[in-house]
Amino acid sequence: MQLNTPSSDRLDATFMALAHPTRRAILARLASGPASVKELTAPFDMSQPAISKHLKILERAGLISHGRSSQRHPRALEAKPLAEANAWLEEYRRFWEGAFQRLDALLEEMKALEPGSDRGPLPPTLS
Amino acid sequence: MQLNTPSSDRLDATFMALAHPTRRAILARLASGPASVKELTAPFDMSQPAISKHLKILERAGLISHGRSSQRHPRALEAKPLAEANAWLEEYRRFWEGAFQRLDALLEEMKALEPGSDRGPLPPTLS
Repeated sequence: MQLNTPSSDRLDATFMALAHPTRRAILARLASGPASVKELTAPFDMSQPAISKHLKILERAGLISHGRSSQRHPRALEAKPLAEANAWLEEYRRFWEGAFQRLDALLEEMKALEPGSDRGPLPPTLS
Repeated sequence: MQLNTPSSDRLDATFMALAHPTRRAILARLASGPASVKELTAPFDMSQPAISKHLKILERAGLISHGRSSQRHPRALEAKPLAEANAWLEEYRRFWEGAFQRLDALLEEMKALEPGSDRGPLPPTLS
């Protein structure tokens, strides 16, 4: 299935929603299955209204859904905006892979030059 | 090379920095090479101070760097925070891949049931 290019507003909303540890923790909890607002509130030292605010931000970004408007209906994870944010980041993969390859090469060179390394050049003989 | 688990604050800063179209456009520009503040300002209908504010947010998140503090030193893309944000999203890959597979299966089923489809079941004979 093709992933349509998301609108800029959608990406704004997704990245903004992900920019908070409580909201990321809520998504991590929902990754193991749907949960009610009460269940989602339990692990946090936070009031239910405070959690509900975070849930609203996640809902507006389309990252979670619920059956009906009632508090008791469980929230579920919606993966599409995560896939779109991931696709945006994937465009930059060559940069971090390139950077890591250069670092790896540097570390290998440093190891080869370490004293006691059997791969490095021999130290100059003092005679 | 191992990617260390970023602190929650770092992920907050990265996702927050990515939650704006101008900042994403600046990163896209820097993907083709380092650029000065003047060069980064040119494509936007925005003042240099407005662009500088966005650059500061990107810098604080570690997404761009520059040689020295002068305005004239070019900014460069730093890929590590993007790699970390990508790694966080990758944890959810099974959700969107699962969702797309289910949708694909549904679309295939619908196609098979279309009138005129040579792959669908034969209509019941009226005799």
